[in-house]
Amino acid sequence: MNITHIEHIGIAVTSLEEAIPYYETKLGLKCYAIEEVADQKVKTAFFMVGQTKIELLESTDPEGPIGKFIEKKGPGVHHLAFAVDNVNESLAELNEKGIQLIDKTARKGAEGLQIGFLHPKSTLSVLTEICGK
Amino acid sequence: MNITHIEHIGIAVTSLEEAIPYYETKLGLKCYAIEEVADQKVKTAFFMVGQTKIELLESTDPEGPIGKFIEKKGPGVHHLAFAVDNVNESLAELNEKGIQLIDKTARKGAEGLQIGFLHPKSTLSVLTEICGK
Repeated sequence: MNITHIEHIGIAVTSLEEAIPYYETKLGLKCYAIEEVADQKVKTAFFMVGQTKIELLESTDPEGPIGKFIEKKGPGVHHLAFAVDNVNESLAELNEKGIQLIDKTARKGAEGLQIGFLHPKSTLSVLTEICGK
Repeated sequence: MNITHIEHIGIAVTSLEEAIPYYETKLGLKCYAIEEVADQKVKTAFFMVGQTKIELLESTDPEGPIGKFIEKKGPGVHHLAFAVDNVNESLAELNEKGIQLIDKTARKGAEGLQIGFLHPKSTLSVLTEICGK
């Protein structure tokens, strides 16, 4: 597996309406896309910071993964996503190395990327995604 | 304030002895430095991932910030650090914009960088650092 960079950092927020102005007017970053990912029950907003995106995640359903995360832990960093050359090959390699996978094979995520999640039990409690084209 | 990239992601771990092999043998990253930051009561290990460092943080004192964080929330992402052109100017600008600062002026952090922390109350619950040379 070849990790090239940190593709994005997923941050759970209570409200994009509150969060986007913070990132834009206080930090000086620019929101370049807002996208709803229906099967994840989130609305996302993206900011480019060098090589890495900040992906703000607002829950659209209290029973969705971000809704549950915020209920349990409050808003904050939700996951880290590493860019890899080949998501399916990387998932297979991680599986062989004993990492517990949430996604056995790649599925489609925001921005049309191939993505797969690793279970935080295997990643020292950091919910970890790998993604690529 | 001009944020150029994500300088590092600080991750609280229970033990560097356990965490470094995970990042090296499972993710294929290379630990290039281990450093103790006595005034922060942490031992840190660094990995380069594209433009961004992963900074693993092991507490050396249960009363230190990482010790308290792990006791309260468990291991996981502790803070995000944005690289800026000028830390003191950026802190002054953020202060003027109503952001609550933990550090009013820059202080010296790991790797000899100038750093300053913003209070998570002002940053949508993400402990945020700005840093630069």
